[in-house]
Formats: sequence, C-alpha cells, structure tokens
Amino acid sequence: MTISDSSSTALTHVDAVIEARWVVTVDSNKRLLEHHSVIVKDAVIMGVLPTALARLKYAASSWVCLDEHVLIPGLINLHTHAAMSLMRGIADDLPLMQWLHEHLWPAERAVVDRHYVKDASLLACAEMLSGGTTCFNDMYFYPEATASAVGQAGMRANLGLTVLEFPTHYASDADDYLQKGFEAHDSWRGNALMTSSIAPHAPYTISNQTFEKVLTYAEQLDLGIHTHLHETLDEIAQSHAQYGMRPMQRLAELGLLGPNLVAAHGVHLLPAEIEILAEFGCHIAHCPTSNLKLTSGIAPVAALLDRGVNVSIGTDGAASNNRLDMLSEMRLAALLAKGASMDATTLPAHQALEMATIKAAKALGLEEKIGSIEMGKQADMVAVKLSDFAVSPCYDPVSHLIYTCGREHVTHTWVAGSLRYCNGVYANIEPIELKEIIQAWQPKLKQYKH
Amino acid sequence: MTISDSSSTALTHVDAVIEARWVVTVDSNKRLLEHHSVIVKDAVIMGVLPTALARLKYAASSWVCLDEHVLIPGLINLHTHAAMSLMRGIADDLPLMQWLHEHLWPAERAVVDRHYVKDASLLACAEMLSGGTTCFNDMYFYPEATASAVGQAGMRANLGLTVLEFPTHYASDADDYLQKGFEAHDSWRGNALMTSSIAPHAPYTISNQTFEKVLTYAEQLDLGIHTHLHETLDEIAQSHAQYGMRPMQRLAELGLLGPNLVAAHGVHLLPAEIEILAEFGCHIAHCPTSNLKLTSGIAPVAALLDRGVNVSIGTDGAASNNRLDMLSEMRLAALLAKGASMDATTLPAHQALEMATIKAAKALGLEEKIGSIEMGKQADMVAVKLSDFAVSPCYDPVSHLIYTCGREHVTHTWVAGSLRYCNGVYANIEPIELKEIIQAWQPKLKQYKH
Repeated sequence: MTISDSSSTALTHVDAVIEARWVVTVDSNKRLLEHHSVIVKDAVIMGVLPTALARLKYAASSWVCLDEHVLIPGLINLHTHAAMSLMRGIADDLPLMQWLHEHLWPAERAVVDRHYVKDASLLACAEMLSGGTTCFNDMYFYPEATASAVGQAGMRANLGLTVLEFPTHYASDADDYLQKGFEAHDSWRGNALMTSSIAPHAPYTISNQTFEKVLTYAEQLDLGIHTHLHETLDEIAQSHAQYGMRPMQRLAELGLLGPNLVAAHGVHLLPAEIEILAEFGCHIAHCPTSNLKLTSGIAPVAALLDRGVNVSIGTDGAASNNRLDMLSEMRLAALLAKGASMDATTLPAHQALEMATIKAAKALGLEEKIGSIEMGKQADMVAVKLSDFAVSPCYDPVSHLIYTCGREHVTHTWVAGSLRYCNGVYANIEPIELKEIIQAWQPKLKQYKH
Repeated sequence: MTISDSSSTALTHVDAVIEARWVVTVDSNKRLLEHHSVIVKDAVIMGVLPTALARLKYAASSWVCLDEHVLIPGLINLHTHAAMSLMRGIADDLPLMQWLHEHLWPAERAVVDRHYVKDASLLACAEMLSGGTTCFNDMYFYPEATASAVGQAGMRANLGLTVLEFPTHYASDADDYLQKGFEAHDSWRGNALMTSSIAPHAPYTISNQTFEKVLTYAEQLDLGIHTHLHETLDEIAQSHAQYGMRPMQRLAELGLLGPNLVAAHGVHLLPAEIEILAEFGCHIAHCPTSNLKLTSGIAPVAALLDRGVNVSIGTDGAASNNRLDMLSEMRLAALLAKGASMDATTLPAHQALEMATIKAAKALGLEEKIGSIEMGKQADMVAVKLSDFAVSPCYDPVSHLIYTCGREHVTHTWVAGSLRYCNGVYANIEPIELKEIIQAWQPKLKQYKH
C-alpha cells in the first residue's frame, strides 16, 4: 500500500511529482531549494514545496525521485540552425570564406530540401533533448520541416521565417521567402509549443526595402525578428562601403531596433551601440564557440551585461560549433567573459544559467510561460545528476552546472510536463530509425568534406 | 571453433588485439588508419596493421572489437594538482586573491595531509581515467601519497617533488621540501609507470638560492623541472619590484631554462621571451580554462607554435577548472587560439591532439616511450565511441575528437597494455569505497565554501 492509497481522500491528484535533491528555480529570488518537489498538472507547474510536505499532500500518476540530481528550468538555445546538424564537422580549421564557398554552401545547394531539413532537424532535436535543451530559436530554410521534427520530438521552438534576397531551392526572392514563411507560420498556428519570428538573415544579405517589409509584417502579426548582427568585421566594412554606415545604425534608421529583436552574435559593438541596444531593449544571442571557431572575435559580454542588455546564449549551427550543447556553451560563455574582461566576478555561474533560461525566455517574449521553475509556468525542466566521480564532491550545484557538468549528466528532460528524454531513451524518437536517416544522408554530404 | 583454433600453429600469440574502426596514430606521418588493429604484448605495441590481416596472423588472450570507435594514444595532462579534486567547485567567480586567501589556502591548511592527498588523488585518477587521460604531470604536497593512488589506479604519472620556502604541514623549509621530495622519489623508483620532476612552485615563491639547488639536483639526478611561470601580471610586477627583472629573465640568469623545464601557463610572454623559450627548448603547459577562470589572461599560443615552442595542455587543479578533462581542454585550446589570433587555421584539430599526446610526452622526456600509437611504444591507448547522436554523422574522427566529443564518449582506457577503465568500470577502483572516501572529506571542507 502506497502513501497515496492510504489516505487518498485527503490527497490532491496531479500528473507528476518530481522530488529533487536540489531545485534551482532561476526565479527573481535566485532560489536554491534542497529536498523540494515540483508538482505538475496539465503541463503546468502547480507548485514547488518541500518533499516531505509533497508526500503528504499529493498523489501522482508519475512520481519521480531524483535523490542525487539538481532540477533546473529547461535550457533555451537562442540561436541555432538545427538542420545543419548533418554537416557537423564536415569542414573545420578553415578561413570563413573558404569554409563557406568551398564546403558549406555547395553542400547546402546539393542537399537542402524539405526532407533534408526534417531529418537533420530531428537529429538536432535528439541531441538537444539529451543535453537538457527544451526550446530553441531557429533560422533555416523550410521551417515547416523543422516544425515537423520538433513536433515529433515534442520540443518547444521559436522558428524563423527565413528571408533572403537571392534564390535557393526554397524560395526565389524576398517576397517569395516571406510568403513561404507565412504559410509555414500558419501550418503550426495553434500548436502550443511553437512560435515564430521573422528571420531576415543579416544586414549584408537583406535590402532596406525588405527590412521595411519585415518590420511591417512583424508589427501586423505581432512577431519577433531574428537576425545576425555585427558578427564579423567584414560585415561592418561592407556596410560602410555599401550604405555609408555600420549595420546597426542602418537597422536603427530603418526602425528595426526594439524589444522584439533578437540579434545573434553582437561581437563587434561600440560603446554607443551597446547603449542603444540597452535603450531599445534588444536581445543578444551570444555564440561564443562559433565566434572563436570562425574567428569572428570575442563579444563584449561584460560591457553588455553592465549596461543591462539582455544577453542570452546560442550554439549557432552544428557546422560551426560542432555541438548543440547548452551546458558546454554556458561554460565557455562564463569562462570567456572573465578572461576577456579580466574580472573573475564577471558572469558568475547563476547568471550564466539565467542567460540560458529566463533571459532567453524574455528574448522570445515567453518569460511569462517558460524560463524558470515557478508556479503557473510550463513544466519545461531538466534533471542533472551530480553524483559521478567527475562531478564529486558537490559544494554548490549551480557552480557544478556551469563549470563541471557535461551534457552526459542530464538524465531527464521534460517539455510542458511530458518526459521527452530519460537516460538515453526518447519518448518519440526511435534510435534505429534515426541512425538509418543519418546513414542515408552521410554519403550525399561526404563529398563536401574538407 | 574460432579462427585462432583452426590454424593455431600459424598464429602468433599476443596479449591483446584491439580492432578499431579508426586509429589516429599521432606519429610523425599523422596517420588516420581505418579498420586497423593494434597488437599488444608485454605492455608494448607490437604492431598496427589492417584488421583483416591481424585476424589471420594473431591469437590473443583479449580480442577487443571497436567497430564504432576511434583509438588514440592516451591523453597526457601536462599540468595538474590532482589532490585538489576534493576542492572542486568550493569557490568560484572570485578575484584570485580572495579565492586564495579566504577559501583555498585555509582549506588546504585544514585538511592537507598524507591521507587527504592519497584520497583526493584517487578521485582525480578515477576522473582522469574515465576521460581518457593515462598520464599526468603533477605538483602537490605529499607526492608519495599521490604515487600510492596512481599505483592503485594503474595510471602513469610524472610526480613533482614540490618545493616551497615557507612551512606547511608537509615540510618546514626549502631543504626540508627537497629532502622529502627525494625520499618520495626513492619510494617509487623502479616503478615503470612513475617518473619525477623537481617542482619549485613558482618564481614568486622560490628564492634564487633554492632555484640554484634545484638546478644542481636536477642535473645530478637527471630530473625534469616543473614550475609555474608568467601566469599573471601580478607575478611579473612583483618580480620587477623584488628582483628588478621579469621572472623568465631571472630563471634564465639562474640557468634554469632548458629542455628539461616544463613551465605551466606562460600567459604573459614578450616576443623576445617566446624566442628564448624556443631557443632553449623549454616546454609550455598551456592551461586555457584556468587562465580564463582566474582571469590570468590568454596565452599567446599561436605565436608560441609559430616559433616552434613545444606547447602541451594541462587542466591545472580541479579547484580552478573545475574538471580534469583533457577532451574539454583540447577543445578550448583549439577554439581560443583561433579567436585570440583571429586566424581559423591556428591550432587545427590534429595539432590539438598532438599537444595532448606526443608533445606532452616530449615535454616529460618520454617521447620514445609514450604519446603515439607506434610499434615499440607502451600501449597507453584510449577508445572513443563515435556513434551517439551527439557525435553523428562523423566525417572526420580527428575533428570530432577535438570539437564534438565529450569525455562521456571515452569507453576504454589502457595504460601499458592493461585495461584500467572500461564503460564505467575501473580495474582497481571500487566505486562504493571511493564514494565513501568523498563523503568523509566533504563535511571537513564544506566550511571553506564560497
């Protein structure tokens, strides 16, 4: 006879009770709770209370005991191109232009279609779920195909309605991209786990006229805007030559700066530009691995944080990372911000975790819904086991999350209260099928290898 | 009936045949072999040949099939303080002096004795073996206790005979440290897996007189010297104030620069100093995580490599890393060298692997014995599985080792032909015992937590 049977009249029935050794709420009080339980019903967090009390108050369809684990909000990858997962490691250690012209772009031209994007996005979802990522902010061709993979995996995503000027297999010109984007957007409307941003690729690939259209549509449809911004010095020089100003000034003059703008990278920023980002409430998706690997530079994270800019973290695509691993990305962000600012107090562990959770939720306009473990929020949560020798002893689970853990310590990933990944097993991804998918694409891509 | 039975008269009997999908030899030809086998007898690599051929020629006591794995030389951690493992994450995100004075040093004064060092070193060995490290270059108090843990774990180590001027529980003055070091050295003499360096801690803690003694003993006993050098700007300023010159110049004048010197960190180096390091054949143990985390700075790795200085990689201690994870350290070294030099061709994947294997072996004077998979060398080897979704697809196993893999993909670690770690299981470390050891020390250290 279980506790729930012995006094069932007095017990409240819920979907799940998750008992954890530690809960890092990432709420405004930055609480680290010990021996607490999270109560989940209808995809939502009903409460967080001491486990001893939870055992007296609740009966649950699923009761999970995580005696050696820390429970954290689901990680949010604020900038990625999920469907590049099948190009992971296809070319490295090359100058950017050689990498793009000789490897990445030819590979994309050869393989990218709806099927490729669906398959590659499913691989990306598998990788992300097993590493504790519950939501990602994407930009790629055929977003409806990414949506299909996201739907299968049971993740949350904000999908970019990608816009370019030049023709690809996907679309012929900016208007065609926009139209295809809106059709895609309609296809996932009503899905509670999916939202959209318009995603004009970058200032160097988008005309003023198209940016103006993007702005109009974003206002009309109440959508976010997701773009690359000030990633490289080349991009800035090119903008000077073509427009007589830096890309950010151009976006400012076009009226694109605002709290619905997520700017990926933000590596090269003048103090006045940091000021403007803060004033307009823009969000930066900091991508430290990609910035180092492609020699874009080191973003001025300490200065951005000092000025109060909302900085979150992205992996970028697997072709330039080569992981979609938010634990590893948080670690690098925290280390690099210290080394670059020469101040060891820069980007402490809890702040790195905020950047990958609540701050990213804010950047997506979802801070009321996800990003922390609080009553009323969606139950997007991750359990990380802190008992292996490599993470022992544990004096501070938040320090361990950032500096010590790897994604291998993630044991459970819930999205909207549903357990989507647990100890190597996915709820809706069949490993043998996904292996076959990877094996089918690999020979087609291999010829573009460095 | 097996192949070995069917034609046993024609077969050569060996200890082990390890079949691998890929073998990265890290020899002078930088060979990447596919479907090859490594033949091991009496701790030594007898040959590397196509698996089809190996099956015809050999019978083995142990025949290991690694169909999805890359086999690499054992990783060598060129700078660590293994016994700081029990202080992992005890204090982070603090300025160096506060970190040392308020947390690390009080903790060390309270707990460090022979038992602590033995126990903490065993935890470090467990972590390192499971992450593919077969050998480490250590510096800490009570090296005979570290040797005892290393002996139990069955690893290889070069142990520092630590020298300081000031009294600790371990020793009273420089002469006492030296004497205790030589006694320790004698205790592991004859052990084929252990070697020694004299380890004067750093120019800012060691007098000229003591450095002179260290030099004399190192020459007499044919030992290496392991020291910290140019880790921080403070250290350089202090040396200017006290000696009227930079630490490296002081070491040069004292005659300490030479091919038996391993200098940890080397963060702040003038072009002329890089020139001198190259000329004298000194070795740098680059510690990128620790240098970022403690805001020491970013070492000029591209310039060092350009000038031909032998640069290897160390994790430093777990109090400032907080991992003893050479895969993660190689990745950061490769990424950071690119970002700092703004040249994406800097420190390509194979070179990062060399730094953690053959170049580290050279730094320890062991390049004839370890550091590559070649006939006649000790069978220190690691298998890394490249079939998980997070490392799929695989176009280039060397790229994956550096940019994509985590230590969780290490499946087998051999030291001198003996399998010391395999899929979570250690040959000589009992997990429950080690857990109890950790649990016994944690409460004693907890009070020094940040």
